[in-house]
Amino acid sequence: MNWRLVLRMLGTIVLIEAATMVPSWIIALIYGDAGDARALLISIGLMLIFALPLRFLMRPKERNMRARDGFLVVSLSWIVMSLFGALPFWIGGLFHSYVDALFEAVSGFTTTGASVLTDFENTPHGLMFWRSFTHWVGGMGVLVLTLALLPRLTGRTSHLVKAESPGPSLSKVVPKMGQSAKIMYLIYALLTMIQFLLLMLAGMNPYDAGIHAMGTAGTGGFSNYGASVGAFNSVAVDWIITVFMVLFGVNFALFYRALTGQWREALKSEELHWYLSLLGISVAAVTLIILPLYGNFFTALRYGSFQVATIVSTTGYATTDFSLWPQAAKGILLCLMFVGSCAGSTAGGLKIVRVALLFKSAKREVMRSFQPRKVKVVRFEGKGCDESLLSQTMVFFVIYILLMLLGTLLLSFGGKFDNETNLTAALSCISNVGPGFGVVGPAGNYAGYGAFEKIVLCVLMLAGRLELFPMLALFHPEIWRKA
Amino acid sequence: MNWRLVLRMLGTIVLIEAATMVPSWIIALIYGDAGDARALLISIGLMLIFALPLRFLMRPKERNMRARDGFLVVSLSWIVMSLFGALPFWIGGLFHSYVDALFEAVSGFTTTGASVLTDFENTPHGLMFWRSFTHWVGGMGVLVLTLALLPRLTGRTSHLVKAESPGPSLSKVVPKMGQSAKIMYLIYALLTMIQFLLLMLAGMNPYDAGIHAMGTAGTGGFSNYGASVGAFNSVAVDWIITVFMVLFGVNFALFYRALTGQWREALKSEELHWYLSLLGISVAAVTLIILPLYGNFFTALRYGSFQVATIVSTTGYATTDFSLWPQAAKGILLCLMFVGSCAGSTAGGLKIVRVALLFKSAKREVMRSFQPRKVKVVRFEGKGCDESLLSQTMVFFVIYILLMLLGTLLLSFGGKFDNETNLTAALSCISNVGPGFGVVGPAGNYAGYGAFEKIVLCVLMLAGRLELFPMLALFHPEIWRKA
Repeated sequence: MNWRLVLRMLGTIVLIEAATMVPSWIIALIYGDAGDARALLISIGLMLIFALPLRFLMRPKERNMRARDGFLVVSLSWIVMSLFGALPFWIGGLFHSYVDALFEAVSGFTTTGASVLTDFENTPHGLMFWRSFTHWVGGMGVLVLTLALLPRLTGRTSHLVKAESPGPSLSKVVPKMGQSAKIMYLIYALLTMIQFLLLMLAGMNPYDAGIHAMGTAGTGGFSNYGASVGAFNSVAVDWIITVFMVLFGVNFALFYRALTGQWREALKSEELHWYLSLLGISVAAVTLIILPLYGNFFTALRYGSFQVATIVSTTGYATTDFSLWPQAAKGILLCLMFVGSCAGSTAGGLKIVRVALLFKSAKREVMRSFQPRKVKVVRFEGKGCDESLLSQTMVFFVIYILLMLLGTLLLSFGGKFDNETNLTAALSCISNVGPGFGVVGPAGNYAGYGAFEKIVLCVLMLAGRLELFPMLALFHPEIWRKA
Repeated sequence: MNWRLVLRMLGTIVLIEAATMVPSWIIALIYGDAGDARALLISIGLMLIFALPLRFLMRPKERNMRARDGFLVVSLSWIVMSLFGALPFWIGGLFHSYVDALFEAVSGFTTTGASVLTDFENTPHGLMFWRSFTHWVGGMGVLVLTLALLPRLTGRTSHLVKAESPGPSLSKVVPKMGQSAKIMYLIYALLTMIQFLLLMLAGMNPYDAGIHAMGTAGTGGFSNYGASVGAFNSVAVDWIITVFMVLFGVNFALFYRALTGQWREALKSEELHWYLSLLGISVAAVTLIILPLYGNFFTALRYGSFQVATIVSTTGYATTDFSLWPQAAKGILLCLMFVGSCAGSTAGGLKIVRVALLFKSAKREVMRSFQPRKVKVVRFEGKGCDESLLSQTMVFFVIYILLMLLGTLLLSFGGKFDNETNLTAALSCISNVGPGFGVVGPAGNYAGYGAFEKIVLCVLMLAGRLELFPMLALFHPEIWRKA
């Protein structure tokens, strides 16, 4: 283990995190809340005290990062980042318990959007802004940001980006990793900015528009209103956010292709077709099911597509309480909580490409069962898939389900809520969606869970955001063994 | 497709089924219920009319069975068997709807034990006996029975037995398949008989003892009392059934080894160790959790071990309503519903060996994620596992979960019940357990579902009993294509 290198990287990442906290501090100053600004400033100070020595005193002998070191950097940096990111909430008195503050920070960075906040009225602007800013930073990834800012930081960095980027294979837009990271962040910032402007045009004030643009971009789902996006009760706002939730669920490499004139190639993406078909079918079905409830087709379509988009993109905003919908609509939303959006987007879940590969593998196995001698290759994006990719995809699914069930079991030990609440809380957290059913439904929140359950959910959220392995590796004795 | 051979086999199987209905008819005559006996006799007559021409007029040119034909024989024979097995319930007026009768027959043959029967008081003895007899026949398998009776029926029969026997690989006790089938059925009958005698010693009348011995042997769970085994309120009965539920969850090949003097080898089985550890840990945990409820350690142990054994062995008998237990115990039982017992037993679920292989594969993949170059072989039962076996086990799990979710979705379209009921109903049926949570809990039943949902559940039960592929193959266009 190259501990010096790992610690030096951790220092760098916390320094960058401290920098990302500055805008929230400025917001706090603008709105003139002294306690708020002080909490953020103290947090920034503590982060500097922790990070500066690590960054400048740790001198690794070997600057090349092996897979094992890279894994540790990714998992530890997300944990450390959350531990520090929670400080303002705790120091600012938003939560009495540090575990609550940590839950909120983890939920923010992992872009889950599950919340233990109940008092939206009295939360100062600076802290609320930081809460949403974690979504924006976590959506594209902190290591990707680090790499965009400091491309020469370390020798081999593909491990890092690979571990932090969602999807079974890394979509590099250009050969150089640092350059790719920069392009990704530029597209991300551009889209966020467009949504911000559109939300202002739709009548939001700049602060609300900023909060909701960041929440959509990271596919997080924190709102500064208890009623979430429903608080605006605006057709335009609903549709803007629906469309952008769908957009942020698309693989960013496709935006890059489109921006560089390769429109046609981008539109040919098989994953995109699966994604849009899933959205289309689900929206159509849900709209039909809830039509009697809303009476009007366009109203049903508006609420139906918002709620489908919020679950598929794993954002978690709400314009209505879908747990009051007919069971058929609830069944669809429950199944969608597993799926998520495209690889290479800011969304969580299993990812469309994996679900597609699972279906294709399953179909092939059914055929193989009665025609054992027929060799058939699974094809995706026009190419034959390697068997090892299929096997990795399946083992990913296996671990996903096992973790979800283990989470459900541990939550049930808390003894607070029923099976439906526990199971969908675990599912929603590992998929980084946000709301579940029962007590953690769109109209409820996670505040009722005890400290133990909240920590379990934090682990699930981090595991889901980092695509399982970096978090699980921490529990494997082998990673701690000396080389 | 060798249709003549397939139809001839179907005829043979329905003939054997007709023969298995005779004991129930005799019971009906003994208890002197005329309508009851008539319903069974008419059913036997209809089966003969269907089966005799198929058996004796179909003359296949080619007597060797290819994999595709074998698959069709297995899936079609279980469907046809259920269609005929439902007749007595329908003709006898136990259910007004044929779908209800079919649900009960499928649940019986697949040894699920999920029931739509609500009036236990007025069900005549013959029909009740037939209902439980389906468990006994379905537990070890009708094709295995056919093979035990007619070993020279067809050239290659390993396809058939393989498709009907639970577990990722076939455990042949002796090289000859027909001989193996005979030995399996002898052990099965012997164990059932011992349990029957013990239950009588514990004070049951012969009829009740027969019903409950068959329900335990097939790991089915139909009782002739609305309160299930709880109706006897007897410590001895509870413990006898608990022990036998555990025994019938053991791989029968181990009993054969033990009976032929290879005790030590049988006890070395890794699957057995996993099975007993899972049972031990679950019983200990549940007993501790429910201790405050029962006050007394032995009472808590009695109820705890019965309910754990009933779920792990996928029997589904109940001595208490576990949905009233603390959430922690319910969470454990929910997770156990996935697992099931050993391969080569009469139990359902994923099977212990698969769960163990999934855990081992997952652990290896975590290690591989940070040590990509280290080659590690997954070991089970002292041997290195073939990668294709691991891959098949994973794809089995994938299909299992996808089917369960699809089932949940389809049940939700019925619009009757909540997510917890639908999800656990789908899980319980595909795992052939019987009870779930919510409306389908141990104190409830499946009568509230509509005809559509009942058919969905029938498909899940059959898919679970036949280990997915034979049923799914019916939905694959390739199997219907001409060679």
